[in-house]
Amino acid sequence: MTERVPVLKIGDVLLVSIQVDLEDQTVLDLQDDLAARIVATGASGVVIDITAVEIVDSFVGRMLATTAAISRMLDAETVVVGMRPAVAITLVELGLSLGGVRTALTLEKGLDMLARPDSRPPAKP
Amino acid sequence: MTERVPVLKIGDVLLVSIQVDLEDQTVLDLQDDLAARIVATGASGVVIDITAVEIVDSFVGRMLATTAAISRMLDAETVVVGMRPAVAITLVELGLSLGGVRTALTLEKGLDMLARPDSRPPAKP
Repeated sequence: MTERVPVLKIGDVLLVSIQVDLEDQTVLDLQDDLAARIVATGASGVVIDITAVEIVDSFVGRMLATTAAISRMLDAETVVVGMRPAVAITLVELGLSLGGVRTALTLEKGLDMLARPDSRPPAKP
Repeated sequence: MTERVPVLKIGDVLLVSIQVDLEDQTVLDLQDDLAARIVATGASGVVIDITAVEIVDSFVGRMLATTAAISRMLDAETVVVGMRPAVAITLVELGLSLGGVRTALTLEKGLDMLARPDSRPPAKP
């Protein structure tokens, strides 16, 4: 059985902290869980904390983009926080610039970002 | 004879609630009816309620995008409400991220969204 990534609720925001190695099934479970929680709670924002992610590949990059797209469909904005310098470089090198996904350096800044109204950027294709 | 999807008027907004299986002719009829009603009523917004839609395929996804595009042409903004978690995931997997269509979890939130001025996002290509 694969591990599940917990989805925590902080006020109006859902927090997903990636602490485990992501396998295909873990990601699918996470996207199912997150989509269900957004609908159940009416959350307006999602923070994905990747502080613990040291190495990123195209699979993880696509996971971030897809998860953000699903959340956007359900009217919740996604902020990715805790990105390491090497991860940022790899994502750009992979051509995955996470269009439409906002980032913040820390969890605190990410929560602040979601709390501010009218700060929503234009979604990119 | 195919079923028709009713178009209801709530104040300045037209409400389309998808309760039947969508076939080609049903969708064409709906788009004709909706376009005619937008022009006749001068409605500024359209809410498409897909709460009853449990399974979505690329045909339904394209229908939502096309209907929103037609409404936008006639200066009415579209909000899709009642999207189930599985539907959001499928639409993203199909690569149909409904560019330019806003979503809200509930009919109430969708109507609120249309009532707020200056909340219109930039249309995506």
